[in-house]
Formats: sequence, C-alpha cells, structure tokens
Amino acid sequence: MDKQQVFIQMALNAWNTYIQRTSKFIDGLSDEDLLREIAPGKNRIIYLLGHLIAIHDNMISLFNQGNRSYAHFDEAFVLKPDRTIQDIPAASVIRNDWKKSNEQLTALFSKMSADDWFGRHNSVSQEDFAKEPERNKLNVLINRTNHLAYHYGQLILAK
Amino acid sequence: MDKQQVFIQMALNAWNTYIQRTSKFIDGLSDEDLLREIAPGKNRIIYLLGHLIAIHDNMISLFNQGNRSYAHFDEAFVLKPDRTIQDIPAASVIRNDWKKSNEQLTALFSKMSADDWFGRHNSVSQEDFAKEPERNKLNVLINRTNHLAYHYGQLILAK
Repeated sequence: MDKQQVFIQMALNAWNTYIQRTSKFIDGLSDEDLLREIAPGKNRIIYLLGHLIAIHDNMISLFNQGNRSYAHFDEAFVLKPDRTIQDIPAASVIRNDWKKSNEQLTALFSKMSADDWFGRHNSVSQEDFAKEPERNKLNVLINRTNHLAYHYGQLILAK
Repeated sequence: MDKQQVFIQMALNAWNTYIQRTSKFIDGLSDEDLLREIAPGKNRIIYLLGHLIAIHDNMISLFNQGNRSYAHFDEAFVLKPDRTIQDIPAASVIRNDWKKSNEQLTALFSKMSADDWFGRHNSVSQEDFAKEPERNKLNVLINRTNHLAYHYGQLILAK
C-alpha cells in the first residue's frame, strides 16, 4: 500500500469509528429518548442527529457528486437553533435517515480514487487550491470527522 | 509540496485548530470557573483539562521521544474518574501546564520528518506494523485530535 492509500485509509478509519460509535449510541435509545436534551437547556439529541445528517450530506455537494439528499434539513438543523422550527421529522424518521445517509456516503467514498480525495473541493477556487493543496476533499472528511467527534462527545452526556 | 507533506500539514492543521479553540475557551474562564462542571453531575472542566494534558503528553512516549512531562497526571486524570482523587493541582497550575504541554508538543512535532510521521508508534509491534502500515504516528495524532474535539464539544457546554 503506498503512502497516499495509507493516509486515505487512516482518515476513513477515523470517520468510520465515530460513525459507528454514534450509531451504537442511537441504537441504545428509544425514539422517545431522542427527544431528550443532552444537558439541561442544551440541544436535543434529535437536533444534533439532524444537524450531523445535514452537514455530512453537504459533502455530496462539496465533492461534486450530484444532488444532496438532505438539503431540506439545513433550515431546521443548521441555519436555525434547536426548537426554532417546530415542524421537524419524527424521531423514527431521523433515526432511519441517519442510517440511509451513512450508507449513501459509504458507497460514495468507496468509489473515490486517491486522485479524487486529493483533488480540490467545490468551495475552494482553482487559484487558491494551487497555493493551498491541503484544501482537498480528504481534508473535508478529516474536518467532518472532528465535527462529528465534537458532537458525539455531547451526545453521550445524555446517557 | 509533495502529497506526503500535504497530508501531514492537514493533520497538523486539524490538531492546531482544536488546540487553539480549547485554549481560547480556557482563556475566557477564571480559575474559579475551571472548577465548574460541564453539565450537572458531569466532569469538571479542570478534570477534562488534566485529562487532555495527560493523554496528549503520552504521545511523547508513543513517539519514542524520551520521558513524558505529565505521567504523574495519569492516576488522577486518566485512570480514575473525576473527584476520586482530591489532591489535584490548582486550577492556575493546570492552566499553565496546558500551555506548557502544547508548547512542548509543538516543538516536538516541528522536528519530525515525513518518515517519522509514517513510522510505527511504540504500542504496535514491527510484525503488526508490516501488515497495518496505517498504525503510524500520524494516525495517533489524528486520533488524538478527534479525542480532543470530543472533549472540546463537552467543555463548551459549560458556557
């Protein structure tokens, strides 16, 4: 395995680790539990799940892989704080969307070559990318993994 | 910049980002604040800081760079839960140790070559490393960054 593949594997392993930890945490909760707050006065579990789905789904667009599946989550789960929008999907729906979103992203990632991963993502210009080659798709995945770990740390406080 | 240097830079950027976020968070708190819990009945801020210092400091040993500076933190901040050991350093001391530890690690990382980063760390055998080359020092840094992001997500709930 060359160094490039090794590094891609490292980044994917870290991503999968936190996806699995978060999935295991959710599997241990009832739909009713998903409506609980992570701590008094803080975000609800369901909000953080919707938030993660939306942010992860945005990689489809950043990676130039066609239309997003959960762009309709952005308003309630990214642009607005929890409880601002009352009409959000039921806990059972969000639980299922979390699984579907992970499956879709896993399928997408498995088709990507090393050149794809080290290519620029859609929110950086060609000029900037020439100067800052670290602003590639793999870097987005690394940042999203840290973002996921950040919220996973909050989620498990609800235990 | 060759690809190897690009991904070392990506991993270091992610590490520095979360170190800076955590430092900024601490700088905004008084020593008295550091004794607060992140949420009712959960770990205190001071415990999580001591925990991060100890876990980060352990990279010195994993990277075969000599003696650790904060091995004496392991008992109170890693092996035991918060409040089990009463005799922990004062908040002002932990605050200063956080800075010193980061400076020491930054100096260490800056001296490491690409070959160092992709070499095996001290808790994997030569045999296992031949089969799993992703178990290298850079992978440890990526995992520690996710661990840091995980606890940073908890720390900022104390706001």
